[in-house]
Amino acid sequence: MSTKDVPRPPKKVGLAPNLNSGFYGQDIISVSQFTRESLDYIFGIAEEMRAIVKRAGSTDLLKGTVLACLFYEPSTRTSASFIAAMSRLGGTVIPITQGVQFSSVAKGESLPDTIRTLESYADMIVLRHPEVGASEIAARYARKPIINAGDGIGEHPTQALLDLFTIKEELGQIDGLAVAMVGDLKYGRTVHSLTRLLYSYDVELSFVSPEILRLPLDIMNEVRARNLPVRETYDVADVIEIADVLYVTRVQKERFSDLSQYEEVKGCYEITPELMERAKEKMIVMHPLPRVGEIHYAVDDDPRAAYFRQMENGMYIRMALLAAVLGKA
Amino acid sequence: MSTKDVPRPPKKVGLAPNLNSGFYGQDIISVSQFTRESLDYIFGIAEEMRAIVKRAGSTDLLKGTVLACLFYEPSTRTSASFIAAMSRLGGTVIPITQGVQFSSVAKGESLPDTIRTLESYADMIVLRHPEVGASEIAARYARKPIINAGDGIGEHPTQALLDLFTIKEELGQIDGLAVAMVGDLKYGRTVHSLTRLLYSYDVELSFVSPEILRLPLDIMNEVRARNLPVRETYDVADVIEIADVLYVTRVQKERFSDLSQYEEVKGCYEITPELMERAKEKMIVMHPLPRVGEIHYAVDDDPRAAYFRQMENGMYIRMALLAAVLGKA
Amino acid sequence: MSTKDVPRPPKKVGLAPNLNSGFYGQDIISVSQFTRESLDYIFGIAEEMRAIVKRAGSTDLLKGTVLACLFYEPSTRTSASFIAAMSRLGGTVIPITQGVQFSSVAKGESLPDTIRTLESYADMIVLRHPEVGASEIAARYARKPIINAGDGIGEHPTQALLDLFTIKEELGQIDGLAVAMVGDLKYGRTVHSLTRLLYSYDVELSFVSPEILRLPLDIMNEVRARNLPVRETYDVADVIEIADVLYVTRVQKERFSDLSQYEEVKGCYEITPELMERAKEKMIVMHPLPRVGEIHYAVDDDPRAAYFRQMENGMYIRMALLAAVLGKA
Repeated sequence: MSTKDVPRPPKKVGLAPNLNSGFYGQDIISVSQFTRESLDYIFGIAEEMRAIVKRAGSTDLLKGTVLACLFYEPSTRTSASFIAAMSRLGGTVIPITQGVQFSSVAKGESLPDTIRTLESYADMIVLRHPEVGASEIAARYARKPIINAGDGIGEHPTQALLDLFTIKEELGQIDGLAVAMVGDLKYGRTVHSLTRLLYSYDVELSFVSPEILRLPLDIMNEVRARNLPVRETYDVADVIEIADVLYVTRVQKERFSDLSQYEEVKGCYEITPELMERAKEKMIVMHPLPRVGEIHYAVDDDPRAAYFRQMENGMYIRMALLAAVLGKA
Repeated sequence: MSTKDVPRPPKKVGLAPNLNSGFYGQDIISVSQFTRESLDYIFGIAEEMRAIVKRAGSTDLLKGTVLACLFYEPSTRTSASFIAAMSRLGGTVIPITQGVQFSSVAKGESLPDTIRTLESYADMIVLRHPEVGASEIAARYARKPIINAGDGIGEHPTQALLDLFTIKEELGQIDGLAVAMVGDLKYGRTVHSLTRLLYSYDVELSFVSPEILRLPLDIMNEVRARNLPVRETYDVADVIEIADVLYVTRVQKERFSDLSQYEEVKGCYEITPELMERAKEKMIVMHPLPRVGEIHYAVDDDPRAAYFRQMENGMYIRMALLAAVLGKA
Repeated sequence: MSTKDVPRPPKKVGLAPNLNSGFYGQDIISVSQFTRESLDYIFGIAEEMRAIVKRAGSTDLLKGTVLACLFYEPSTRTSASFIAAMSRLGGTVIPITQGVQFSSVAKGESLPDTIRTLESYADMIVLRHPEVGASEIAARYARKPIINAGDGIGEHPTQALLDLFTIKEELGQIDGLAVAMVGDLKYGRTVHSLTRLLYSYDVELSFVSPEILRLPLDIMNEVRARNLPVRETYDVADVIEIADVLYVTRVQKERFSDLSQYEEVKGCYEITPELMERAKEKMIVMHPLPRVGEIHYAVDDDPRAAYFRQMENGMYIRMALLAAVLGKA
């Protein structure tokens, strides 16, 4: 599939606009669209969604609406979360997952043609794509709203929203918190997006990673330009006592050319019950999941382990976005 | 999978009957079942379906009914269209797509057994299968209605219906039109089926293709037997000025043993903005999609480009068929 | 995927308990949970479900509830049956089928993490897994109910329930019947599970198989310990005249190291119209399907051929279980 060879018509309402003036009919492409005001707005709806689910399981808010979930690469977690969200809003989903590669796309259809076809059936499209910028291209051609569910190493805005929402729900507020990002800070798009959302808040940031996986310079410069207190370190032990939020990601063995070097440092990015003994009483451990050993299973029973509640919040945030974009929030 | 080794019981109500006496409980296997009267009937329902979708998004007409979509080969467009149609009618879908080959079918189950199992769960079955005649076999065994969603190079009746419906909706009527079929007329089953549906109307037909991809003789003889005005040509430029409908299909490079021959002729089957300048002011360009270059993207903004509206019509036609076959139209 | 490396927390309500005190909130893991009393209870609900489907197609009993169908191996029949059951109850399904291997599981996620993620979206999880004991592990970690839809050569309790329900519905009662199990009795988990459910009834059991596929000793000892009349034989002809129920399974060629031996005996396990002439007038032939020749197609029109009605019963039993486990029966 190529996303390059199609001349691009002007988009009807502007591309990835600031959302202060409302979500209705807008594309959700990038965290850069969200101001503190629009975050407050969507978090408020997400809280209502949770209340509805806890009380009644679901609502008929989106009864009669159809969402196309177009996943060019599989992602059980994200697609299941969107399907659940749409179901609990009373709407239905056209799941186009696994095997897209065998079908019209394999016949050489361009992304814009696939998008224009699907929008003739559905009211909205959620797009997961391995190429950076795919959602922006889709949004340029679509008259119906596009929600970016991850485009390669680019953005995954709904993940960043659920991460920030979790911090707010777990700790009551975001201002004043010490947030430590741990693990692969170079390639981890969830870390980049969450960091950018935090620019709107008064937080203290720590970045904990091996040398070869440090936060990219452009993001570090953005952080510094906002005069947020920041530090970098190689060992999670350096921040465990002060962190209100420990946002953990996986350090992949494959990133190291010298495996002995990996073995040497990996312990610095593992969250163990012993490490947790030194953490604050009121703090949380987060992880975008899946994990592969970087948070020990024995930590799961610690009330500060927030990663499964974080998953659940993903459903409420996506319910809020779907309802808001369709003008039913 | 084999569809051959099973002794065939007599079908309960007759196979692929003329639909004049109603759609309720009938199989939709072939365009040959449709008379002008039954086409008018189903187009009328499709127009109502569009009105419902535009006004309310959906209806509860098929609430509580279950459709099994059994796709032995993937077809994003067709399966998404049926799922959307069923959803907007308030019903639900059991999607059995991608990976059928790994499952009970891989264990050697015959098509009749799979069909008889699925009809014990669902109220109706939509079947896509790579072998010609598969839908007819399925219909012979099923007590519940079967809708053919394409059987190899055989039939794809719902596609032909949406094509004809598009002509009627775009141009107001079908009688009196000059319809030009362009591209691969030998293997293109959509061309064959649409041509056959047009036998019921007073139209002028043009067939534009390379020599090696000319319309099969049997269909040409059928056309002539109906005394419809007809001509064949090698170049779309020969018909562009008189055509009310340009039905474009892809000329596949792979059909040519001599690639230089392909390069020489392919320009005769490409729809460009320059070509469109010579076309009538009121005419339409259609394509079953996916396209791979045979209609230039710059044509998309031309109001005469009807192919995305054609896709949307597919949903309304399928809604109409589902409702009619289940006796709820 | 590994199900082994995770320390297991104590389960909140006890693992796979006897269901006499009710199904609400319980896991359905093993046939050993079912007493005669709880079987009567669930069969009663299944009969109501059939009445509802025959009369109205569906009900809104589970409106607003979401079921995750997590299939680590494909099973068209079982997954379609659960999707249909949930749809006819008014609920919705998150289908996670085919391709699980490419997704988070492929990234090395443990079964407990996948389960804990899905239960944050869904109200209940149906699990199909190739490893024995996977459902029990899932149930240990989940707060939401788990339904075992087959774990390798282990259990497949909903299949055993629908088998027993079919006997009851077809023949009016279970006590007093002569039940013959035919075919692969060594590896056939459906035979093992159904046999175990029959321990609660006053039945006469026959086991018909080639020497190398005889019923495992542990199950035969359980049968004997219950003092049920039992016999073993090599030829279905030996039991055809006395059997009230003929439960047929496939004898796989691959089980034989010497193919000539297979050719020699296979006729002893094939159900032909000629064989059926010697059977009782009131008896039934069952098969879990798919079949590959062991029941001739010519038998399908015999009113005693119950295997397609058996499939349909699968939907009613699953509707009953879903409703009972969610406390809505």
